[in-house]
Amino acid sequence: MTTTAQASVQYEDDQVRVTRWDFQPGERTGRHVHAHDYVVVPVTDGRTGAVAPDGSMTESDLRTGQSYARPAGGEHDVVNVGEAHLAFVEIELKHTAPAA
Amino acid sequence: MTTTAQASVQYEDDQVRVTRWDFQPGERTGRHVHAHDYVVVPVTDGRTGAVAPDGSMTESDLRTGQSYARPAGGEHDVVNVGEAHLAFVEIELKHTAPAA
Repeated sequence: MTTTAQASVQYEDDQVRVTRWDFQPGERTGRHVHAHDYVVVPVTDGRTGAVAPDGSMTESDLRTGQSYARPAGGEHDVVNVGEAHLAFVEIELKHTAPAA
Repeated sequence: MTTTAQASVQYEDDQVRVTRWDFQPGERTGRHVHAHDYVVVPVTDGRTGAVAPDGSMTESDLRTGQSYARPAGGEHDVVNVGEAHLAFVEIELKHTAPAA
């Protein structure tokens, strides 16, 4: 049985929602669609797998402090495929939406 | 002689500017005014001093992964008052401006 990653909203206003995600090995976010553009700041090293709706998985290495940005509209389930605790902070930009 | 912290813009679009800041002990940003609301995600532990225009300094402890948000308009110089390398990622929200 896989368990769900822990999400804690650290800050929110009308502009942004800032959520810290903590994953033990094998833990996942659960399938979700990104309603907004977002920035991810890894605060540990680690490796994630992003499982697309068709079941295919794309693995990525995360490096502490090496941020990345993604557009709204992405749909996936993110799982910690590494051997250790993984954490990142996600900053969602609430004034954005998926491209029409 | 104090030296300036290293800033590297990791991502920028019309919504955000994402900058990683690295400070050796004693290094500082230099005096600046925040044109936009911003979120800071520390990627190391450490301690900063924020020097206001009147010369007063407010010290703060930073914890890896414990983000914080600040409004546009703040003016200060940020210095690493700790004993070790300090880094954080700053996300500026380009659609915001100082309160009138």
